[in-house]
Amino acid sequence: MSKTSPGNFFEDFSLGQVIVHATPRTVTAGDQALYTALYGSRFAVQSADAFAETIGYPRSPVDDLLVFHIVFGKTVPDISLNAVANLGYAECQFLNTVYPGDTLYAESQVIGLKENSSGKTGTVYVRTHGSNQHGEAVLSFVRWVMVRKRNETQMSGAATVPVLASHVSAEALGGACPPIAAEAWSNAHAGAPHRFNDYAVGEKINHADGMTVEEAEHQLATRLYQNTARVHFSQQAEAKGRFGRRLIYGGHVISLARALSFNGLANAFHITAINGGRHVAPLFAGGTVYAWSEIREKSHASGRADVGALRILTRATRDLSCEAFPTNEATPEQPGVVLELDYWALMPV
Amino acid sequence: MSKTSPGNFFEDFSLGQVIVHATPRTVTAGDQALYTALYGSRFAVQSADAFAETIGYPRSPVDDLLVFHIVFGKTVPDISLNAVANLGYAECQFLNTVYPGDTLYAESQVIGLKENSSGKTGTVYVRTHGSNQHGEAVLSFVRWVMVRKRNETQMSGAATVPVLASHVSAEALGGACPPIAAEAWSNAHAGAPHRFNDYAVGEKINHADGMTVEEAEHQLATRLYQNTARVHFSQQAEAKGRFGRRLIYGGHVISLARALSFNGLANAFHITAINGGRHVAPLFAGGTVYAWSEIREKSHASGRADVGALRILTRATRDLSCEAFPTNEATPEQPGVVLELDYWALMPV
Amino acid sequence: MSKTSPGNFFEDFSLGQVIVHATPRTVTAGDQALYTALYGSRFAVQSADAFAETIGYPRSPVDDLLVFHIVFGKTVPDISLNAVANLGYAECQFLNTVYPGDTLYAESQVIGLKENSSGKTGTVYVRTHGSNQHGEAVLSFVRWVMVRKRNETQMSGAATVPVLASHVSAEALGGACPPIAAEAWSNAHAGAPHRFNDYAVGEKINHADGMTVEEAEHQLATRLYQNTARVHFSQQAEAKGRFGRRLIYGGHVISLARALSFNGLANAFHITAINGGRHVAPLFAGGTVYAWSEIREKSHASGRADVGALRILTRATRDLSCEAFPTNEATPEQPGVVLELDYWALMPV
Repeated sequence: MSKTSPGNFFEDFSLGQVIVHATPRTVTAGDQALYTALYGSRFAVQSADAFAETIGYPRSPVDDLLVFHIVFGKTVPDISLNAVANLGYAECQFLNTVYPGDTLYAESQVIGLKENSSGKTGTVYVRTHGSNQHGEAVLSFVRWVMVRKRNETQMSGAATVPVLASHVSAEALGGACPPIAAEAWSNAHAGAPHRFNDYAVGEKINHADGMTVEEAEHQLATRLYQNTARVHFSQQAEAKGRFGRRLIYGGHVISLARALSFNGLANAFHITAINGGRHVAPLFAGGTVYAWSEIREKSHASGRADVGALRILTRATRDLSCEAFPTNEATPEQPGVVLELDYWALMPV
Repeated sequence: MSKTSPGNFFEDFSLGQVIVHATPRTVTAGDQALYTALYGSRFAVQSADAFAETIGYPRSPVDDLLVFHIVFGKTVPDISLNAVANLGYAECQFLNTVYPGDTLYAESQVIGLKENSSGKTGTVYVRTHGSNQHGEAVLSFVRWVMVRKRNETQMSGAATVPVLASHVSAEALGGACPPIAAEAWSNAHAGAPHRFNDYAVGEKINHADGMTVEEAEHQLATRLYQNTARVHFSQQAEAKGRFGRRLIYGGHVISLARALSFNGLANAFHITAINGGRHVAPLFAGGTVYAWSEIREKSHASGRADVGALRILTRATRDLSCEAFPTNEATPEQPGVVLELDYWALMPV
Repeated sequence: MSKTSPGNFFEDFSLGQVIVHATPRTVTAGDQALYTALYGSRFAVQSADAFAETIGYPRSPVDDLLVFHIVFGKTVPDISLNAVANLGYAECQFLNTVYPGDTLYAESQVIGLKENSSGKTGTVYVRTHGSNQHGEAVLSFVRWVMVRKRNETQMSGAATVPVLASHVSAEALGGACPPIAAEAWSNAHAGAPHRFNDYAVGEKINHADGMTVEEAEHQLATRLYQNTARVHFSQQAEAKGRFGRRLIYGGHVISLARALSFNGLANAFHITAINGGRHVAPLFAGGTVYAWSEIREKSHASGRADVGALRILTRATRDLSCEAFPTNEATPEQPGVVLELDYWALMPV
């Protein structure tokens, strides 16, 4: 029996199956510093213990997306090592705050399996749960990926597609955010005068700045998350692949877009849920990422008086300024949108 | 009203105006590790808790220039987002030691405004104060930048230039350095046998080694400092700009020169003041940085018996060995000096 | 007397000489985070405090190779700044566990000197000792390097070659590993079902994945280790050198190979000794590294009942898949083996 794991193929998954993922991971101030260096994020709550303490946290929490990437990374060797494509995310909720020193665990349950008519691939739907060293849930999300079959000639007949919510309901928001002393919140330190009540549904915000990605950067990030997907790391293998080059981890684009969104959404201090995400087009090193956002909905998260929830659709583009709020999809020849991310963020009232 | 900040233009500043900068920042061991990885600095006090404790610190302090870059970075969105050029620094003093876990804040006061005769730009002079979570001053410095005007046809008549000291006086040095047990200082661990009394005014030191800078490196550094100046990050925008490529943050060159200076100045463990700094020519990725220093002055800092102060002029070059102590300025075609930095460093007697 | 250190030449070493190296270094969670980002290592003991505590450690120890690189790095300015080549390692033992917060010191003794017949160079053999802030030994190893002579015309006659063990004896293993609660070890969290008894002598394992190295990555790593060897950093100097480009620190390849070996050796959680290492061919940026391992020997380390020791020969290749377990040496034109590393790793029974 070979000791090398080839990853799972479509036939290796069964409905209801639970997979405990390796490797548990303690998140530290070192990971947070790297996260800052990789994206330049400037949200005050995650940046300064003193600011976080002033408004009611015991100290700065770990950045939400860093938690997401670490939990996601653990699932890759079991779920998507043989994936042809990451098709989407849904029902992502942040359930408990993560602080430096906490250890993250991940497990996934297979909730859908649908063979493609080509016989070559199938779609695997999993619900992933991230938890901490106390066994508390910190994160859960659904994702689905197109996975290669081991045997292309034999059809399995699998055709179960789970019903997924179009978005996380407002009642379910805020689990990872302690009560906030909104009156102690300093707009000057946080970086903008605009609070929850200053945003309007339909409002569009150009985040203005651009960020060019280098191979070393996305590789450092993706390894930090212990994400082993091969397409991100081996130029020798990818030279013979679909794109001729290494593909940047989609989560890297999400974090870049979130960091850029500070210019226009500085007080949106916490991502509390991700309704859906779609990597519309691939990103490669040398590409410059821009972003813009639209306010889709506003909600008083479960009736909280300290914070409100903005439902935001952020689009990231490649090599295209967002001044004109573009929606066209990038192609190999043409700049355009590479990411659409629909999420709920909390903002002090 | 747009939520996107376009940065301030020359007309947006007024004499005496005080600007509180976002984002407060807790400096951690993670930031210090990244600083080491970015520059390879080897000064023992900042590298080893055990060494620092032996000579009288409670633990290793954060590297002086890391403190400088973080405070500086905070000022960029308000002061220099629309800057055409960073013209200079003066009167920079390190006032209190910063340890991992401290949170840094920054605010600036406008102390000079001078419109340029072209009508297109003006020079803004600010004095920036960095403080910690206890409200103690840790750093102050003056810098001046050339900023674009919003309206090029209307002259403001601003013509106030502050009087700045040619150098920080010896009496003002040492605020961020506790009393040192010079007799407990190990030359072997610190890396050189030469103490304060071994240096002579006029002495020139070639720091010998060279360091080639990559795009990923200066971008990681500049984002770590949460410095958002656009010229460092967007290849797509800079391709159409003055240089056709991303410009490296001047502070990155300062830190490289300081790290290289270990070979020749290993016992100069603390930068206590910066008298002046000038980015003589730009640096781009692919350039190799060398450095040499000249001892300009020696002083018994405020009569301290533990340490003396060396006033050092360090020059960093691009693609030019410093064996011959070059002073020629680099041009696009010609290797040469890119930085002149005049500072005071402390060294055990 | 010049303040700049030119490094030692062959004539500067004497048999029995002891050299105390600069710079002591406190290893932190920040260093460990960078190590993860540089290599993507996934061994559970070093990744999660909670996992380490479950099996008997007080918390996660620092990665063994990070300890090795930091101690090695300190020796470079004194031993190998003028080295033409790193010829080999032997008798490397990990003697005490290193935890974040510990400070590492290094000193070396010259144990062999052999002039080469050309008169231009000589081989210097040193035994290096790494210790912590309590004076406890944490690491010791022998290495030998070919060093330039200052005076090529005068022969020294030095011809002392130390007798070195072909491998570290099984009785000497395990010093840096506390007693392990093997029954508490979770295969699922650690990443593989295969324990000590599942491996057979002669077994070959292809570690499957490939990793392309960028200039920024190996430079960040090598500076993190405060290793100052010039060949890694100055493109301007190396353009005129033997290879025309920067050479990647051999230790970077060792760490890449170890991280890749997780796929097939996930439970081999601790490198307890390195019997020998040889950089068979150089690696440059842009090269993709693969690895495979062969089990050479099995031993019940000093009769421990908790862990067994596997003697492993890991080969890393450049631009060559390890499916066919290649042994050919890479040349400038031809992909092949760049590293052979013979080491002992511990695995729970």
